[in-house]
Amino acid sequence: MCLGLENMSKGTVVLAYSGGLDTSCILVWLKEQGYDVITYLANIGQDEDFEAARKKAESLGAKKVFIEDLRAEFVEEFIWPSVQANAIYEDRYLLGTSIARPCIARRQVQIAKQEGAQYVSHGATGKGNDQIRFELTCYALYPEVKIIAPWRIPEFYNRFRGRKDLMEYAEVSKCPNPIILAHVCVLFPPTGVPVMVTHLKEGTTKTTPLDIFSYLNELGGKHGVGRIDIVENRFIGMKSRGIYETPGGTILYHAHLDIETFTMDREVRRIKQDLGIKFSELLYNGFWYSPECKFLRHCIAKSQENVEGKVQLSVFKGHVYILGRESPGSLYNEELVSMDVQGDYDPCDASGFIKINAVRLREHHRMEREAQLKQ
Amino acid sequence: MCLGLENMSKGTVVLAYSGGLDTSCILVWLKEQGYDVITYLANIGQDEDFEAARKKAESLGAKKVFIEDLRAEFVEEFIWPSVQANAIYEDRYLLGTSIARPCIARRQVQIAKQEGAQYVSHGATGKGNDQIRFELTCYALYPEVKIIAPWRIPEFYNRFRGRKDLMEYAEVSKCPNPIILAHVCVLFPPTGVPVMVTHLKEGTTKTTPLDIFSYLNELGGKHGVGRIDIVENRFIGMKSRGIYETPGGTILYHAHLDIETFTMDREVRRIKQDLGIKFSELLYNGFWYSPECKFLRHCIAKSQENVEGKVQLSVFKGHVYILGRESPGSLYNEELVSMDVQGDYDPCDASGFIKINAVRLREHHRMEREAQLKQ
Amino acid sequence: MCLGLENMSKGTVVLAYSGGLDTSCILVWLKEQGYDVITYLANIGQDEDFEAARKKAESLGAKKVFIEDLRAEFVEEFIWPSVQANAIYEDRYLLGTSIARPCIARRQVQIAKQEGAQYVSHGATGKGNDQIRFELTCYALYPEVKIIAPWRIPEFYNRFRGRKDLMEYAEVSKCPNPIILAHVCVLFPPTGVPVMVTHLKEGTTKTTPLDIFSYLNELGGKHGVGRIDIVENRFIGMKSRGIYETPGGTILYHAHLDIETFTMDREVRRIKQDLGIKFSELLYNGFWYSPECKFLRHCIAKSQENVEGKVQLSVFKGHVYILGRESPGSLYNEELVSMDVQGDYDPCDASGFIKINAVRLREHHRMEREAQLKQ
Amino acid sequence: MCLGLENMSKGTVVLAYSGGLDTSCILVWLKEQGYDVITYLANIGQDEDFEAARKKAESLGAKKVFIEDLRAEFVEEFIWPSVQANAIYEDRYLLGTSIARPCIARRQVQIAKQEGAQYVSHGATGKGNDQIRFELTCYALYPEVKIIAPWRIPEFYNRFRGRKDLMEYAEVSKCPNPIILAHVCVLFPPTGVPVMVTHLKEGTTKTTPLDIFSYLNELGGKHGVGRIDIVENRFIGMKSRGIYETPGGTILYHAHLDIETFTMDREVRRIKQDLGIKFSELLYNGFWYSPECKFLRHCIAKSQENVEGKVQLSVFKGHVYILGRESPGSLYNEELVSMDVQGDYDPCDASGFIKINAVRLREHHRMEREAQLKQ
Repeated sequence: MCLGLENMSKGTVVLAYSGGLDTSCILVWLKEQGYDVITYLANIGQDEDFEAARKKAESLGAKKVFIEDLRAEFVEEFIWPSVQANAIYEDRYLLGTSIARPCIARRQVQIAKQEGAQYVSHGATGKGNDQIRFELTCYALYPEVKIIAPWRIPEFYNRFRGRKDLMEYAEVSKCPNPIILAHVCVLFPPTGVPVMVTHLKEGTTKTTPLDIFSYLNELGGKHGVGRIDIVENRFIGMKSRGIYETPGGTILYHAHLDIETFTMDREVRRIKQDLGIKFSELLYNGFWYSPECKFLRHCIAKSQENVEGKVQLSVFKGHVYILGRESPGSLYNEELVSMDVQGDYDPCDASGFIKINAVRLREHHRMEREAQLKQ
Repeated sequence: MCLGLENMSKGTVVLAYSGGLDTSCILVWLKEQGYDVITYLANIGQDEDFEAARKKAESLGAKKVFIEDLRAEFVEEFIWPSVQANAIYEDRYLLGTSIARPCIARRQVQIAKQEGAQYVSHGATGKGNDQIRFELTCYALYPEVKIIAPWRIPEFYNRFRGRKDLMEYAEVSKCPNPIILAHVCVLFPPTGVPVMVTHLKEGTTKTTPLDIFSYLNELGGKHGVGRIDIVENRFIGMKSRGIYETPGGTILYHAHLDIETFTMDREVRRIKQDLGIKFSELLYNGFWYSPECKFLRHCIAKSQENVEGKVQLSVFKGHVYILGRESPGSLYNEELVSMDVQGDYDPCDASGFIKINAVRLREHHRMEREAQLKQ
Repeated sequence: MCLGLENMSKGTVVLAYSGGLDTSCILVWLKEQGYDVITYLANIGQDEDFEAARKKAESLGAKKVFIEDLRAEFVEEFIWPSVQANAIYEDRYLLGTSIARPCIARRQVQIAKQEGAQYVSHGATGKGNDQIRFELTCYALYPEVKIIAPWRIPEFYNRFRGRKDLMEYAEVSKCPNPIILAHVCVLFPPTGVPVMVTHLKEGTTKTTPLDIFSYLNELGGKHGVGRIDIVENRFIGMKSRGIYETPGGTILYHAHLDIETFTMDREVRRIKQDLGIKFSELLYNGFWYSPECKFLRHCIAKSQENVEGKVQLSVFKGHVYILGRESPGSLYNEELVSMDVQGDYDPCDASGFIKINAVRLREHHRMEREAQLKQ
Repeated sequence: MCLGLENMSKGTVVLAYSGGLDTSCILVWLKEQGYDVITYLANIGQDEDFEAARKKAESLGAKKVFIEDLRAEFVEEFIWPSVQANAIYEDRYLLGTSIARPCIARRQVQIAKQEGAQYVSHGATGKGNDQIRFELTCYALYPEVKIIAPWRIPEFYNRFRGRKDLMEYAEVSKCPNPIILAHVCVLFPPTGVPVMVTHLKEGTTKTTPLDIFSYLNELGGKHGVGRIDIVENRFIGMKSRGIYETPGGTILYHAHLDIETFTMDREVRRIKQDLGIKFSELLYNGFWYSPECKFLRHCIAKSQENVEGKVQLSVFKGHVYILGRESPGSLYNEELVSMDVQGDYDPCDASGFIKINAVRLREHHRMEREAQLKQ
């Protein structure tokens, strides 16, 4: 008697599916290996025909198809903390892709648990950062999960290597023609995140996190803001070249940096700067769901308690110019800093300040001189 | 019998003189107080009528006038180490003025020693950073020196306060009309400093430090590069607003950042990044001539041993775009990073790498879950 | 007509008074200068005849005498956060005196405000750290206060210099004869502070912060724990020699370090270690009441959320030995770490982990070799 | 016709051999798998019968036996830089074992290259740090090497697991009876490493690195110095308990810390402290042969240029007490720090120093108060 082989599933896999050739091959291959495959496609604001992807997945044999709109939670839970942190990797990269991974993977393991799937799978390559970002999130949130990473399995990559060229990432689109200058005002509440964006000439106003971020992305993109061509250091120890475009992130990075320096104490800022560098590395390396990243997010959020106010800026030909800022919690005291008003500041004190700071330096150079004379 | 009062000098002061109203008042006032005054004007590349300043100083009673061309040593000894360090203060300010102070003050104390003067004087205000940068250098290099800072002396500032408005700094010049795009190639030797700049279309080539820096300043200035309007934290604990223009510095900052990331090991870069932040603070606060700054310069210079190569960039409408880079000492191994070639990289290793990195995270989340269940 | 001179007070000064010759001279001198003087003596646990001090102050003309028992708040609000931070300056000094200053000065300005005094005064010398710790606290909590520091006023110090020898601090007492070994158990709650100390043999148990700290001080003192003779760097730029005795602090330092490493995630600990070093510097330099120190205390307290458990230790002949620890929140998983049990740990993963970590190193050394061959 | 099977070797393995049961099993197993095995035993000062180990290896079929005396190079090239760095892991562990690994592995790959062996092997377990320290060194210095780590190979560890108990590390020896107090003087040259040790009563003097270190080890061991029982965080993400004994290292750690603080500028020390923490982590994690560790060693060595002088200390009942220090390069200026002598230090300057430091704090608290009033 013959057992129906189709019932002999090895188990269920939730596959992060893009609709492209790459993950379509993986879908088919996983089925060939005997798995039931649930595809999952996250909408984090990318330009994509989600319905076409759904049909393709179904036609290739997906048991179930999830298309999840994560845009609002992506902006609120992942981008906003990065804005607060002034997150930037190796002084230049604004971490756009890196931030998306933990958000996407979190929903994927939720689906896996809910559907009783023991496996998750993805199409990230074996030399990149995304595999790590993806899998560390999965292991952290679903410690028992098993991960199938076909691009690290010789049977898969040896078979598909020849078609790799078909799967290359599309060229970065050509630079559009920026025509006009946009004046924008960004408003931050006392938690350091944006709550309103206004286009000063057109009067357009956005007030939800998703709307604010989408609008700045659109505006910045139109003016060619936030494009970089860099070589960066991957977590696995290779250098790689990347071309990135982060228009909304770039505008917010500059606006936040400005309002923060305006309202935050110098020494708090200095400590927070180091925490932000560390946070950026964790984010880049895939450790969003780690105790240290959670701890840093808490500390960084704490540092933002006084960060509020309005920043006016212009977006123009690829560049963000800060035009001015104001804040109720400003530590900038115009009278105190004015050269014409002394207030209760006594300029003589500066002499003592400098001379005490010089005690160490004078001693040092005196001894150096003595040492030279002895020789 | 009448004693010649002119012989009753309190001593000789070397005054850092700009030719402007501000230090001219100080010159006269110092003479009134009974000092012999030697004026000293440093040429660090600013736009100035040095001969007019000389005549003015002489006419106001300066005993001697020094006009010193420090341009070459300023670029080589002060700007180049800052380029190596990627020096930047509070993530934005490229420290142009800060770097000039120790250079200017060093020559001033040389003159003071050579002329047997026990005093030096300057026109920096009592609330600013420059007084500190200036005086710490003087104390470090000439520990016995006495400093006269009129803007901290009530007799002086109470008398001249009313004229302060006359002394205000000129408005930052309006943005010129950038017309063309400039393609430039910057060449770095294995010490991380630029040795050649070439304008790719015009073929102009500069090879001495001073020529390179002046040329980039001119080019960047023409295209509106490196202008910022920021609020920053002064060393004495106030926030102040500054409008800065650092065209050449901005171009070199981006070019150096690029070639450095291209050629330097990731972890060396990480350590050096922290040293660079510390170095920038010392520079901003006036501690160039301190043991710690000397130590940092040494360490940073050491980190540059492999930093060499060519960076191509375009300067366009206020912006610096990196177009590409190449280097004999590149750590960027195209073959290693290629998705089509495995070389001796085994993608399976990434699984182990990720799983070991996840050991801690899985344990952590498992325990967290247990703790929640207990509650 | 004669005006009563005694009514012509320059105002009221609250003087931090010790009962010793030093501050007694200051009391008299302040009255001579025309101030009304209120003396204030803080009890932070030192060995002192407080009533004798009261009488002396009254006999020297103090208008009012405050003797304040700050012991409990000192332990709870100042020592406990330092224990959480593992606060230590320059790797050795446990900051006993430094911690006391902000506590003492806080009450002093409270008294000054309540009594309508515009002045505060203290007997700290002009070359030390205590003047700074003291005054920064006063300025922070009472921005309008005026401070009289006689040891920085030439009229005072020139007059009293000759008697300075009378005012020297007493020699550190000779080392007592430690006789027995004490086994102690310290219990920490999930906030990282001690809640109970038990002497294992004698059964003595202490449960309030003040009792715990006093008991450990007594016990440690008896066994000669926590004595150091060091040279340290003062904030004002001098090196100075100090002989310190911190018996209770030393025991708690070791116990806390142990339970913390036992229960805290490795990477959280690493970040917190840097915060603790920064915190210690602020404390040493007198910046307890600064926004950055407040921020650090918050972050450090946050890091302690899982730090709880029992530490057993012996105090013996000047030394603290940790004997063992246990904790409900322990991250130490005996099974996971055992060499005999694999659990879900796969030793093969370590190969991948190591090889990925080696990618960068191998590339680096390969290139170095190539570079050498070229030469 | 029969081919001699002994000629069918899979290749040659250089095995780090201890003479114990553990690596003896590996030797036999490697031969069973078809490898020629060269054993290598490093003498880094441990107590061992090297000739017995040689005989055992030969009897078990080693093709060749190397017994290498690495004691002098271990002290000079590995321990001395760690002393300069004040290397300590997680505030407590002096890294004894960690330092030995790169030294041992370096010679092993030298032997492998010289003998034409493509393989190296070791007996470190799959959950520990030593495997990483060992292998990263091998990969760095011999990028093409292949590593056989039997404790990560299921065929091996499943077979030998049952005998693991036989292989347990011996109990830490019981505490000896310290009888006398030893007074010792350690002399450091201007590179921060010890050049002479003298026992003050007995007059014993040691002057070579190896003699100095061995003598302090012996002396410290006799007095029970440097024993700790700690829980630490392994690189692979587990916590593990370790009992360590580092007598010589502990004495040198305290002596160096003392002479360094005595002679090094405060701010250089602060920067160097961070570099030392980073260095310790690299050392612990096995990255001695990495570009960043090389860079740190260079920077740390640079920081030692002025670190010289004599430290007197007593070693007594498990404890190291610093008794005093002197140095020609001392920055400790007794006159400057004296309370009776003012020198060219003007106590009034301290007022200005404090008031300028307070500008920021007063502003901050004033604003905080204003904010509270508004609510």
